[in-house]
Amino acid sequence: MLRVEEDAVRATVADLTRELGADRVLTGTDVLRQHGTDESWHPPATPDAVVLPRDTEDAAAIVRACRDYHVPIVPFGAGTSLEGHIAALQGGISVDMRELNKILRVSVEDMDVTVQAGVKRRQLDERLRPEGVFFSVDPGADATLGGMIATGASGTTSVRYGTMRENVLSLTVVNANGDVVVTRSRARKSSAGYDLTRLLIGSEGTLALIIEATLRLQPTPEAMSAATCAFETLEGAIDCVIAVLAHGIPIARIELLDDVQIDAVNRHAELHLAVAPTLFLEFHGTPQEVESQAEEVREIAAEHGGPDFAWASDEGERRRLWRARHGAYDAARALRPGARGFTTDACVPISKLAECIAETKRDIDDSGLIAPIVGHVGDGNFHLAILVDPDDPDELRRAVELNDRLVRRAIDLGGTCTGEHGVGYGKAPFLELEHGPAALEMMRAIKHALDPDNLFNPGKIIP
Amino acid sequence: MLRVEEDAVRATVADLTRELGADRVLTGTDVLRQHGTDESWHPPATPDAVVLPRDTEDAAAIVRACRDYHVPIVPFGAGTSLEGHIAALQGGISVDMRELNKILRVSVEDMDVTVQAGVKRRQLDERLRPEGVFFSVDPGADATLGGMIATGASGTTSVRYGTMRENVLSLTVVNANGDVVVTRSRARKSSAGYDLTRLLIGSEGTLALIIEATLRLQPTPEAMSAATCAFETLEGAIDCVIAVLAHGIPIARIELLDDVQIDAVNRHAELHLAVAPTLFLEFHGTPQEVESQAEEVREIAAEHGGPDFAWASDEGERRRLWRARHGAYDAARALRPGARGFTTDACVPISKLAECIAETKRDIDDSGLIAPIVGHVGDGNFHLAILVDPDDPDELRRAVELNDRLVRRAIDLGGTCTGEHGVGYGKAPFLELEHGPAALEMMRAIKHALDPDNLFNPGKIIP
Repeated sequence: MLRVEEDAVRATVADLTRELGADRVLTGTDVLRQHGTDESWHPPATPDAVVLPRDTEDAAAIVRACRDYHVPIVPFGAGTSLEGHIAALQGGISVDMRELNKILRVSVEDMDVTVQAGVKRRQLDERLRPEGVFFSVDPGADATLGGMIATGASGTTSVRYGTMRENVLSLTVVNANGDVVVTRSRARKSSAGYDLTRLLIGSEGTLALIIEATLRLQPTPEAMSAATCAFETLEGAIDCVIAVLAHGIPIARIELLDDVQIDAVNRHAELHLAVAPTLFLEFHGTPQEVESQAEEVREIAAEHGGPDFAWASDEGERRRLWRARHGAYDAARALRPGARGFTTDACVPISKLAECIAETKRDIDDSGLIAPIVGHVGDGNFHLAILVDPDDPDELRRAVELNDRLVRRAIDLGGTCTGEHGVGYGKAPFLELEHGPAALEMMRAIKHALDPDNLFNPGKIIP
Repeated sequence: MLRVEEDAVRATVADLTRELGADRVLTGTDVLRQHGTDESWHPPATPDAVVLPRDTEDAAAIVRACRDYHVPIVPFGAGTSLEGHIAALQGGISVDMRELNKILRVSVEDMDVTVQAGVKRRQLDERLRPEGVFFSVDPGADATLGGMIATGASGTTSVRYGTMRENVLSLTVVNANGDVVVTRSRARKSSAGYDLTRLLIGSEGTLALIIEATLRLQPTPEAMSAATCAFETLEGAIDCVIAVLAHGIPIARIELLDDVQIDAVNRHAELHLAVAPTLFLEFHGTPQEVESQAEEVREIAAEHGGPDFAWASDEGERRRLWRARHGAYDAARALRPGARGFTTDACVPISKLAECIAETKRDIDDSGLIAPIVGHVGDGNFHLAILVDPDDPDELRRAVELNDRLVRRAIDLGGTCTGEHGVGYGKAPFLELEHGPAALEMMRAIKHALDPDNLFNPGKIIP
């Protein structure tokens, strides 16, 4: 992919230095490298400069300068993406959102909050906690809200509260003309024209630059309680999940860890769980609701080969379990010090999940690689953390093959190549296989209509 | 607006008669008039022919024929739309979905169902009931699922289960090239590219022709129970709703009827409710959950000037109450026999709802018109049924002015001109006021990209 011309970059940097000030336009080697590198195994690509907008006007000025000189615009949040989203494949300007980090308003009455795109998840959590409300989407990483919107993120609580797509009311963006656009009112519902909000969620910075967002909030549940339950078989664990959902039990979290991952978590977090396919569960509600939900799940689990339903005895134990679950990736990597994690993201209809995971485990065995599995199993979504020696090209090749087979299997089973990580440039080659050429052509037409010069994060999503 | 040329229509009708058979291409005067007339006060506009596709191939053939001769394509479901959606403003072909009425698959395991666009809500309900699942979106009318998708419908249960936007997994459509496109896999979650599904929900037939849909299902709750509660003031009723939501009570329905509407319902449905602002409520869950939810709401209502929380004593009483609520529009019209209902659809952040309704009631008084109010108050959405003598142009003018003021007020208060009815051509003049010129330009660019010849339902949404 051709890099943007040096003269164009130089002119853009000069304009932006004049408009934003020299301290907001960075070109140091380390800064550039850091801004082109995410947490994936995909080769990074450094931008030509990093700029730091302080407000919407700055962001609009950046887009206009880049448009004037035909220079790519690559947004940067926390750098935690997993498919090469922030790699500046053609060079250009990385727009670092770190100073757009204000929580602009909170309304408990309306159960919504307006944030700038650079606000991070934990920062928002801390601000909301004293208000008795929370923002439900939890992808694990301390990502920025802008990044979570751009990738259409979700996580452990999506089975109950939904993904970013269900929890964003409105966006403020700068479009390719440099105009500031508010995509939607703050009303709970609207049928007023095309759903620009949802079109931009998951668009990975390829259609417009996201500056602010109004998010839905949830009331903090009166009681929360956790449990684990080991199963004789993977199928039993998944059938238990299907039955829990069919019973309408509003489970807040229901996560699967396979035997390999449980072994890793035991070592890393000093737990003593039976090494078997295991569900981690969380219940939200009034104390009575939490108790009756847990009792129902205990009975269902016992019917599916999971007799040892274990309540977390107290809040400390609950937190310890979920810290262990959220540390699953680090635990996996600790199985093989020095290895890199190569993360997959298949998602299938839940009726196909047991088949998909079983076949994938056979593939893992055949590959000779270590690859623990964790799954947002209520959504049919699961991840392998394939542990790869970064200095062994043959291992990387086998990991790529394993992922390739997994993606094709997920699509064959009526699922998707990415449940929540997004496309970036890592999954772009699979998009036509998943959607077919005519759907891809519609996506391409939308991209061309909204970004005719292909300046917004070029090379991402659309191959 | 110019009508399509007669020669073009004649050629299209000839082609389609050959391809689909003469019995699937209708041109009788009554049929044409019926297909250009919805349930709104907007002037109807008749198409030049009505065609009846039996399958996806027929639908693709219709789009291709219309494309070849540059003839408009106006989809027709049940004709229950409220903003002139089905009016063939430029003439052309009305595509009646009545024979695309098959429920193609149901999966209780995956909690989803695939239907053709012409399947009606009650038909789906009957098919699903024995399976112990239901489709949650209930707009009142026995609309087609295709129509509900096209308008981004919602209704009384959206406060708990969401709108069409949260309950459609995937669509099969015919795009402007005549290609059949599946917008998305059946996976619960996906971040695989632009969200064509959500872009098409609420697009009112202006971007593609919707043929099939895969919908999310909900498990039928073990217990359902209803209640009514009259309040001293409108503000009290709305503050009660805000408190119920803030407490995280998963209320299934929470509907407001103002004093005028209660009076109408009392007369029409032979109820004996106190003539005051009243909430109709429904609770879903286990019997214990339903009971504890109702008890909590009873306490909250009492704190807000609603001391007379009245349980529906049994299932018959519950059904009678909700039949009365769903008959609110007929009840309103019975207040003034011979009058037409002119329906509004404002939606505002709930913190502004009391203000918005109070000012609107003053406007109603000033207008001299009768206009009962019902509201999906948990979503901040409410409707007036303005009763207008169809033979009195001055009344219609006053109704139009009342609606105009209401729309502007809703937008001023951070809300929308349409919470669930859609834009059609009735609300198109307000779209720029609501979204601003730059957002509208983005919508126009999308329309042009996906329908460059402007054949899909021309004159709708984009003014």
